[in-house]
Amino acid sequence: MTANAHTFTVQTKGKGTYEITDEIERFVRKSGVTTGTATVFLQHTSASLVIYENADPTARTDLHRFFEQLVPEDSPDYIHTAEGPDDSTSHLRMVLTRSSETIPVVQGHLALGTWQGIFIFEHRRAPHHRTIVVSVIGS
Amino acid sequence: MTANAHTFTVQTKGKGTYEITDEIERFVRKSGVTTGTATVFLQHTSASLVIYENADPTARTDLHRFFEQLVPEDSPDYIHTAEGPDDSTSHLRMVLTRSSETIPVVQGHLALGTWQGIFIFEHRRAPHHRTIVVSVIGS
Amino acid sequence: MTANAHTFTVQTKGKGTYEITDEIERFVRKSGVTTGTATVFLQHTSASLVIYENADPTARTDLHRFFEQLVPEDSPDYIHTAEGPDDSTSHLRMVLTRSSETIPVVQGHLALGTWQGIFIFEHRRAPHHRTIVVSVIGS
Repeated sequence: MTANAHTFTVQTKGKGTYEITDEIERFVRKSGVTTGTATVFLQHTSASLVIYENADPTARTDLHRFFEQLVPEDSPDYIHTAEGPDDSTSHLRMVLTRSSETIPVVQGHLALGTWQGIFIFEHRRAPHHRTIVVSVIGS
Repeated sequence: MTANAHTFTVQTKGKGTYEITDEIERFVRKSGVTTGTATVFLQHTSASLVIYENADPTARTDLHRFFEQLVPEDSPDYIHTAEGPDDSTSHLRMVLTRSSETIPVVQGHLALGTWQGIFIFEHRRAPHHRTIVVSVIGS
Repeated sequence: MTANAHTFTVQTKGKGTYEITDEIERFVRKSGVTTGTATVFLQHTSASLVIYENADPTARTDLHRFFEQLVPEDSPDYIHTAEGPDDSTSHLRMVLTRSSETIPVVQGHLALGTWQGIFIFEHRRAPHHRTIVVSVIGS
Protein backbone atom coordinates (compact mmCIF):
# COMPACT_ATOMS: atom_id res chain seq x y z
CA MET A 1 0.00 0.00 0.00
CA THR A 2 1.23 3.47 -0.91
CA ALA A 3 -0.15 7.01 -0.78
CA ASN A 4 1.00 9.69 -3.21
CA ALA A 5 0.09 13.33 -3.74
CA HIS A 6 0.51 15.43 -6.85
CA THR A 7 -0.34 19.09 -7.39
CA PHE A 8 -0.79 20.78 -10.74
CA THR A 9 -2.19 24.03 -12.10
CA VAL A 10 -4.51 24.77 -14.98
CA GLN A 11 -4.78 28.18 -16.59
CA THR A 12 -8.40 28.88 -17.49
CA LYS A 13 -9.57 31.50 -19.98
CA GLY A 14 -12.62 32.43 -17.92
CA LYS A 15 -16.02 30.74 -17.78
CA GLY A 16 -16.28 27.25 -19.19
CA THR A 17 -15.17 23.66 -18.69
CA TYR A 18 -11.59 22.43 -19.03
CA GLU A 19 -10.84 18.71 -19.19
CA ILE A 20 -8.15 17.35 -16.86
CA THR A 21 -8.72 13.58 -17.29
CA ASP A 22 -5.41 12.87 -19.04
CA GLU A 23 -3.33 14.66 -16.42
CA ILE A 24 -4.96 12.62 -13.65
CA GLU A 25 -4.68 9.33 -15.52
CA ARG A 26 -1.00 10.06 -16.09
CA PHE A 27 -0.42 10.58 -12.38
CA VAL A 28 -2.28 7.34 -11.56
CA ARG A 29 -0.05 5.38 -13.93
CA LYS A 30 3.08 7.05 -12.53
CA SER A 31 2.05 6.17 -8.96
CA GLY A 32 2.30 2.44 -9.70
CA VAL A 33 -1.00 1.79 -7.88
CA THR A 34 -3.03 -0.99 -9.51
CA THR A 35 -5.99 -1.20 -7.08
CA GLY A 36 -7.15 1.75 -4.99
CA THR A 37 -8.58 5.24 -5.39
CA ALA A 38 -7.65 8.58 -6.94
CA THR A 39 -9.05 11.63 -5.15
CA VAL A 40 -9.22 14.83 -7.19
CA PHE A 41 -9.55 18.04 -5.19
CA LEU A 42 -9.89 21.62 -6.41
CA GLN A 43 -8.55 24.26 -4.02
CA HIS A 44 -11.00 27.03 -4.95
CA THR A 45 -14.44 28.39 -4.10
CA SER A 46 -15.22 30.11 -7.41
CA ALA A 47 -14.53 27.12 -9.64
CA SER A 48 -15.54 23.49 -9.22
CA LEU A 49 -15.14 19.93 -10.48
CA VAL A 50 -17.59 18.02 -12.61
CA ILE A 51 -17.54 14.60 -14.16
CA TYR A 52 -19.39 15.13 -17.43
CA GLU A 53 -20.08 13.84 -20.94
CA ASN A 54 -16.81 14.41 -22.82
CA ALA A 55 -17.65 13.29 -26.36
CA ASP A 56 -20.16 15.77 -27.77
CA PRO A 57 -19.34 19.45 -27.04
CA THR A 58 -23.02 20.43 -27.24
CA ALA A 59 -23.55 18.71 -23.88
CA ARG A 60 -21.15 21.20 -22.31
CA THR A 61 -22.77 24.14 -24.09
CA ASP A 62 -26.04 23.15 -22.42
CA LEU A 63 -24.25 22.81 -19.06
CA HIS A 64 -22.83 26.32 -19.29
CA ARG A 65 -26.15 27.85 -20.28
CA PHE A 66 -28.10 25.94 -17.63
CA PHE A 67 -25.92 27.34 -14.84
CA GLU A 68 -26.28 30.88 -16.20
CA GLN A 69 -30.03 30.47 -15.83
CA LEU A 70 -30.07 28.54 -12.53
CA VAL A 71 -27.79 31.05 -10.79
CA PRO A 72 -28.30 34.27 -12.75
CA GLU A 73 -25.68 36.99 -12.41
CA ASP A 74 -28.19 39.79 -12.86
CA SER A 75 -30.21 38.97 -9.73
CA PRO A 76 -30.42 41.92 -7.32
CA ASP A 77 -30.49 39.52 -4.36
CA TYR A 78 -26.78 38.95 -3.81
CA ILE A 79 -24.85 41.04 -1.30
CA HIS A 80 -21.43 39.37 -1.71
CA THR A 81 -20.56 41.25 -4.90
CA ALA A 82 -17.34 43.07 -4.04
CA GLU A 83 -15.61 41.40 -6.98
CA GLY A 84 -18.50 41.87 -9.40
CA PRO A 85 -21.68 40.03 -10.45
CA ASP A 86 -19.70 36.80 -10.84
CA ASP A 87 -18.60 36.81 -7.18
CA SER A 88 -21.40 35.20 -5.15
CA THR A 89 -22.74 33.45 -8.23
CA SER A 90 -19.37 31.67 -8.65
CA HIS A 91 -19.57 30.34 -5.11
CA LEU A 92 -23.17 29.20 -5.62
CA ARG A 93 -22.38 27.42 -8.89
CA MET A 94 -19.44 25.78 -7.11
CA VAL A 95 -21.56 24.57 -4.20
CA LEU A 96 -24.06 22.96 -6.61
CA THR A 97 -21.28 20.94 -8.24
CA ARG A 98 -18.20 19.44 -6.55
CA SER A 99 -14.94 20.21 -4.80
CA SER A 100 -13.78 16.59 -4.59
CA GLU A 101 -14.32 13.42 -6.59
CA THR A 102 -12.91 10.01 -5.71
CA ILE A 103 -12.51 7.59 -8.60
CA PRO A 104 -11.61 3.93 -8.17
CA VAL A 105 -8.33 2.75 -9.67
CA VAL A 106 -8.68 -0.70 -11.24
CA GLN A 107 -5.87 -2.53 -13.04
CA GLY A 108 -3.73 0.58 -12.88
CA HIS A 109 -6.23 2.94 -14.54
CA LEU A 110 -8.99 5.36 -13.53
CA ALA A 111 -12.22 3.33 -13.64
CA LEU A 112 -14.13 5.96 -15.63
CA GLY A 113 -17.07 5.06 -17.84
CA THR A 114 -16.86 5.43 -21.61
CA TRP A 115 -18.33 8.93 -21.74
CA GLN A 116 -16.97 10.35 -18.49
CA GLY A 117 -14.37 13.09 -18.40
CA ILE A 118 -13.15 15.08 -15.41
CA PHE A 119 -13.45 18.84 -15.85
CA ILE A 120 -12.68 22.05 -14.06
CA PHE A 121 -15.79 24.21 -14.22
CA GLU A 122 -14.58 27.82 -14.18
CA HIS A 123 -17.21 30.24 -12.88
CA ARG A 124 -15.27 33.52 -13.05
CA ARG A 125 -15.31 35.73 -16.13
CA ALA A 126 -11.59 36.44 -15.98
CA PRO A 127 -8.84 33.88 -16.61
CA HIS A 128 -7.58 32.18 -13.43
CA HIS A 129 -4.86 29.80 -12.32
CA ARG A 130 -6.58 26.81 -10.70
CA THR A 131 -4.76 24.33 -8.49
CA ILE A 132 -5.73 20.64 -8.33
CA VAL A 133 -4.41 18.15 -5.79
CA VAL A 134 -4.57 14.44 -6.66
CA SER A 135 -4.10 11.74 -4.02
CA VAL A 136 -3.65 8.16 -5.12
CA ILE A 137 -3.89 5.45 -2.48
CA GLY A 138 -3.68 1.71 -3.03
CA SER A 139 -1.48 -1.25 -3.73
CA MET B 1 -3.93 -2.34 4.87
CA THR B 2 -5.69 -3.70 1.81
CA ALA B 3 -7.42 -2.24 -1.25
CA ASN B 4 -10.21 -4.10 -3.03
CA ALA B 5 -12.40 -3.31 -6.02
CA HIS B 6 -15.77 -4.75 -6.91
CA THR B 7 -17.94 -4.04 -9.95
CA PHE B 8 -21.63 -4.78 -10.24
CA THR B 9 -24.52 -3.86 -12.50
CA VAL B 10 -28.05 -2.72 -11.76
CA GLN B 11 -30.86 -2.94 -14.28
CA THR B 12 -33.08 0.14 -13.97
CA LYS B 13 -36.63 0.42 -15.28
CA GLY B 14 -36.20 4.03 -16.35
CA LYS B 15 -36.50 7.18 -14.28
CA GLY B 16 -36.44 6.80 -10.51
CA THR B 17 -34.24 5.83 -7.58
CA TYR B 18 -32.88 2.33 -6.95
CA GLU B 19 -31.34 1.45 -3.61
CA ILE B 20 -27.92 -0.26 -3.64
CA THR B 21 -26.99 -0.02 0.06
CA ASP B 22 -27.16 -3.77 0.76
CA GLU B 23 -24.93 -4.69 -2.17
CA ILE B 24 -22.28 -2.24 -1.01
CA GLU B 25 -22.50 -3.29 2.64
CA ARG B 26 -22.09 -6.91 1.53
CA PHE B 27 -18.92 -6.09 -0.35
CA VAL B 28 -17.54 -4.16 2.64
CA ARG B 29 -18.09 -7.18 4.89
CA LYS B 30 -16.53 -9.51 2.34
CA SER B 31 -13.43 -7.27 2.05
CA GLY B 32 -12.55 -7.90 5.70
CA VAL B 33 -11.77 -4.20 6.21
CA THR B 34 -12.73 -2.99 9.70
CA THR B 35 -11.50 0.64 9.55
CA GLY B 36 -11.24 2.57 6.29
CA THR B 37 -13.40 3.88 3.47
CA ALA B 38 -15.75 2.57 0.80
CA THR B 39 -15.87 4.62 -2.39
CA VAL B 40 -18.94 4.16 -4.57
CA PHE B 41 -18.58 5.29 -8.18
CA LEU B 42 -21.15 5.30 -10.98
CA GLN B 43 -19.69 5.00 -14.49
CA HIS B 44 -22.37 7.05 -16.27
CA THR B 45 -23.28 10.60 -17.24
CA SER B 46 -27.05 10.19 -17.52
CA ALA B 47 -27.58 8.63 -14.08
CA SER B 48 -26.12 9.61 -10.72
CA LEU B 49 -25.67 8.66 -7.09
CA VAL B 50 -27.55 10.11 -4.15
CA ILE B 51 -27.53 9.37 -0.46
CA TYR B 52 -31.15 9.93 0.53
CA GLU B 53 -33.87 9.24 3.08
CA ASN B 54 -34.68 5.54 2.66
CA ALA B 55 -37.56 5.01 5.08
CA ASP B 56 -40.55 6.93 3.74
CA PRO B 57 -41.11 6.54 -0.04
CA THR B 58 -42.85 9.94 -0.22
CA ALA B 59 -39.45 11.59 0.25
CA ARG B 60 -38.30 10.01 -2.99
CA THR B 61 -41.50 10.97 -4.80
CA ASP B 62 -40.73 14.59 -3.92
CA LEU B 63 -37.14 14.12 -5.11
CA HIS B 64 -38.25 12.84 -8.50
CA ARG B 65 -40.77 15.63 -8.97
CA PHE B 66 -38.35 18.33 -7.82
CA PHE B 67 -35.80 17.37 -10.47
CA GLU B 68 -38.49 17.33 -13.20
CA GLN B 69 -39.19 20.95 -12.29
CA LEU B 70 -35.61 22.11 -11.68
CA VAL B 71 -34.38 20.70 -15.00
CA PRO B 72 -37.49 20.57 -17.20
CA GLU B 73 -37.44 18.35 -20.26
CA ASP B 74 -39.72 20.63 -22.26
CA SER B 75 -37.36 23.61 -22.24
CA PRO B 76 -36.49 24.79 -25.78
CA ASP B 77 -33.01 25.84 -24.59
CA TYR B 78 -31.14 22.56 -24.92
CA ILE B 79 -29.17 21.76 -28.06
CA HIS B 80 -27.77 18.37 -26.97
CA THR B 81 -30.97 16.45 -27.70
CA ALA B 82 -29.93 13.84 -30.26
CA GLU B 83 -31.24 11.09 -27.98
CA GLY B 84 -34.44 12.94 -27.03
CA PRO B 85 -35.66 15.44 -24.45
CA ASP B 86 -34.09 13.33 -21.66
CA ASP B 87 -30.59 13.64 -23.17
CA SER B 88 -29.09 16.93 -21.93
CA THR B 89 -31.49 17.00 -18.99
CA SER B 90 -30.07 13.66 -17.78
CA HIS B 91 -26.55 15.08 -17.77
CA LEU B 92 -27.70 18.21 -15.94
CA ARG B 93 -29.57 16.22 -13.28
CA MET B 94 -26.45 14.08 -12.90
CA VAL B 95 -24.15 17.06 -12.46
CA LEU B 96 -26.38 18.46 -9.69
CA THR B 97 -26.12 15.21 -7.74
CA ARG B 98 -23.10 12.91 -7.49
CA SER B 99 -20.83 10.54 -9.38
CA SER B 100 -18.86 9.40 -6.34
CA GLU B 101 -19.51 9.07 -2.61
CA THR B 102 -16.96 7.96 -0.04
CA ILE B 103 -18.36 6.46 3.13
CA PRO B 104 -16.26 5.64 6.18
CA VAL B 105 -16.03 2.00 7.24
CA VAL B 106 -16.15 1.66 11.02
CA GLN B 107 -16.07 -1.68 12.86
CA GLY B 108 -16.48 -3.52 9.57
CA HIS B 109 -19.64 -1.70 8.43
CA LEU B 110 -20.60 1.31 6.32
CA ALA B 111 -20.94 4.21 8.79
CA LEU B 112 -24.29 5.38 7.40
CA GLY B 113 -26.78 7.27 9.53
CA THR B 114 -30.13 5.72 10.50
CA TRP B 115 -32.08 7.16 7.57
CA GLN B 116 -29.40 7.11 4.90
CA GLY B 117 -29.58 4.83 1.89
CA ILE B 118 -27.38 4.84 -1.21
CA PHE B 119 -29.34 5.08 -4.46
CA ILE B 120 -28.81 5.13 -8.18
CA PHE B 121 -30.79 8.05 -9.58
CA GLU B 122 -31.78 7.05 -13.12
CA HIS B 123 -32.45 10.06 -15.35
CA ARG B 124 -33.28 8.31 -18.64
CA ARG B 125 -36.83 7.31 -19.56
CA ALA B 126 -35.77 3.92 -20.91
CA PRO B 127 -34.42 1.04 -18.80
CA HIS B 128 -30.62 0.94 -18.59
CA HIS B 129 -27.84 -1.26 -17.27
CA ARG B 130 -25.82 0.82 -14.80
CA THR B 131 -22.36 -0.16 -13.62
CA ILE B 132 -21.08 0.67 -10.13
CA VAL B 133 -17.49 0.29 -8.96
CA VAL B 134 -16.84 0.00 -5.22
CA SER B 135 -13.35 0.43 -3.75
CA VAL B 136 -12.75 -0.53 -0.15
CA ILE B 137 -9.49 0.57 1.43
CA GLY B 138 -8.41 0.06 5.03
CA SER B 139 -7.17 -2.36 7.61
CA MET C 1 -0.09 3.01 5.98
CA THR C 2 -2.76 3.49 8.63
CA ALA C 3 -6.52 4.04 8.67
CA ASN C 4 -8.23 5.92 11.49
CA ALA C 5 -11.81 6.90 12.22
CA HIS C 6 -13.09 9.67 14.44
CA THR C 7 -16.69 10.63 15.23
CA PHE C 8 -17.84 13.93 16.66
CA THR C 9 -21.06 15.84 17.12
CA VAL C 10 -22.01 19.44 16.41
CA GLN C 11 -25.00 21.14 17.99
CA THR C 12 -26.66 23.41 15.44
CA LYS C 13 -29.05 26.26 16.27
CA GLY C 14 -31.25 25.58 13.24
CA LYS C 15 -30.78 26.74 9.65
CA GLY C 16 -27.37 28.03 8.66
CA THR C 17 -23.76 27.00 8.14
CA TYR C 18 -21.40 25.86 10.89
CA GLU C 19 -17.68 25.59 10.25
CA ILE C 20 -15.94 22.34 11.24
CA THR C 21 -12.55 22.81 9.55
CA ASP C 22 -10.52 23.09 12.77
CA GLU C 23 -11.98 19.92 14.28
CA ILE C 24 -11.07 17.96 11.15
CA GLU C 25 -7.59 19.46 10.85
CA ARG C 26 -7.00 18.54 14.52
CA PHE C 27 -7.92 14.93 13.87
CA VAL C 28 -5.65 14.81 10.80
CA ARG C 29 -2.70 16.04 12.85
CA LYS C 30 -3.49 13.57 15.66
CA SER C 31 -3.62 10.68 13.16
CA GLY C 32 0.06 11.13 12.30
CA VAL C 33 -0.71 10.73 8.58
CA THR C 34 1.51 12.93 6.39
CA THR C 35 0.34 11.85 2.90
CA GLY C 36 -3.13 10.50 2.23
CA THR C 37 -6.78 11.53 2.41
CA ALA C 38 -9.32 12.70 4.97
CA THR C 39 -12.92 11.74 4.24
CA VAL C 40 -15.60 13.78 5.96
CA PHE C 41 -19.03 12.18 6.14
CA LEU C 42 -22.27 13.57 7.58
CA GLN C 43 -24.72 10.93 8.85
CA HIS C 44 -27.91 12.85 8.06
CA THR C 45 -30.44 13.45 5.29
CA SER C 46 -31.73 16.87 6.43
CA ALA C 47 -28.32 18.54 6.72
CA SER C 48 -25.34 18.44 4.39
CA LEU C 49 -21.69 19.31 3.89
CA VAL C 50 -20.33 22.17 1.84
CA ILE C 51 -16.84 23.46 1.20
CA TYR C 52 -17.38 27.20 0.96
CA GLU C 53 -15.79 30.63 1.15
CA ASN C 54 -14.96 31.10 4.83
CA ALA C 55 -13.58 34.64 4.95
CA ASP C 56 -16.45 37.02 4.20
CA PRO C 57 -19.74 36.17 5.99
CA THR C 58 -21.79 37.84 3.23
CA ALA C 59 -20.93 34.90 0.96
CA ARG C 60 -22.75 32.60 3.37
CA THR C 61 -25.71 34.97 3.68
CA ASP C 62 -26.12 34.68 -0.09
CA LEU C 63 -25.81 30.89 0.13
CA HIS C 64 -28.59 30.64 2.72
CA ARG C 65 -30.91 32.92 0.75
CA PHE C 66 -30.21 31.19 -2.55
CA PHE C 67 -31.29 27.81 -1.17
CA GLU C 68 -34.48 29.32 0.30
CA GLN C 69 -35.34 30.44 -3.23
CA LEU C 70 -34.12 27.37 -5.13
CA VAL C 71 -36.05 24.95 -2.87
CA PRO C 72 -38.88 27.07 -1.44
CA GLU C 73 -40.63 25.83 1.68
CA ASP C 74 -43.98 27.31 0.67
CA SER C 75 -44.39 25.21 -2.47
CA PRO C 76 -47.61 23.17 -2.45
CA ASP C 77 -45.91 20.39 -4.43
CA TYR C 78 -44.29 18.41 -1.61
CA ILE C 79 -46.05 15.42 -0.10
CA HIS C 80 -43.33 14.40 2.39
CA THR C 81 -44.23 17.04 4.95
CA ALA C 82 -45.07 15.06 8.09
CA GLU C 83 -42.45 17.01 10.02
CA GLY C 84 -43.38 20.39 8.55
CA PRO C 85 -42.52 22.54 5.51
CA ASP C 86 -38.80 22.01 6.20
CA ASP C 87 -39.10 18.22 5.87
CA SER C 88 -38.82 17.39 2.14
CA THR C 89 -37.10 20.70 1.45
CA SER C 90 -34.30 19.70 3.85
CA HIS C 91 -33.72 16.48 1.94
CA LEU C 92 -33.73 18.32 -1.40
CA ARG C 93 -31.26 20.96 -0.19
CA MET C 94 -29.09 18.12 1.11
CA VAL C 95 -29.14 16.23 -2.18
CA LEU C 96 -28.03 19.36 -4.07
CA THR C 97 -24.98 19.71 -1.82
CA ARG C 98 -22.89 16.89 -0.31
CA SER C 99 -22.86 14.02 2.15
CA SER C 100 -19.16 13.24 1.76
CA GLU C 101 -16.03 15.18 0.85
CA THR C 102 -12.55 13.71 0.52
CA ILE C 103 -9.67 16.12 1.01
CA PRO C 104 -6.04 15.24 0.31
CA VAL C 105 -3.64 15.28 3.25
CA VAL C 106 -0.27 16.75 2.24
CA GLN C 107 2.65 17.23 4.64
CA GLY C 108 0.41 16.36 7.57
CA HIS C 109 -2.31 18.94 6.84
CA LEU C 110 -5.62 19.18 5.00
CA ALA C 111 -4.75 20.48 1.52
CA LEU C 112 -7.47 23.15 1.52
CA GLY C 113 -7.18 26.31 -0.55
CA THR C 114 -6.81 29.72 1.09
CA TRP C 115 -10.54 30.54 1.15
CA GLN C 116 -11.96 27.06 1.69
CA GLY C 117 -13.70 26.07 4.90
CA ILE C 118 -15.67 22.89 5.60
CA PHE C 119 -19.19 23.56 6.87
CA ILE C 120 -22.25 21.71 8.05
CA PHE C 121 -25.24 23.16 6.21
CA GLU C 122 -28.23 22.75 8.55
CA HIS C 123 -31.54 22.69 6.70
CA ARG C 124 -33.96 22.19 9.62
CA ARG C 125 -35.49 25.12 11.47
CA ALA C 126 -35.00 23.53 14.88
CA PRO C 127 -31.60 22.94 16.54
CA HIS C 128 -30.16 19.48 15.91
CA HIS C 129 -27.26 17.29 16.98
CA ARG C 130 -25.31 16.38 13.85
CA THR C 131 -22.78 13.54 13.74
CA ILE C 132 -19.70 13.65 11.51
CA VAL C 133 -17.39 10.71 10.82
CA VAL C 134 -13.85 11.45 9.66
CA SER C 135 -11.63 8.74 8.14
CA VAL C 136 -7.95 9.45 7.64
CA ILE C 137 -5.97 7.03 5.50
CA GLY C 138 -2.32 7.31 4.51
CA SER C 139 1.26 7.01 5.58
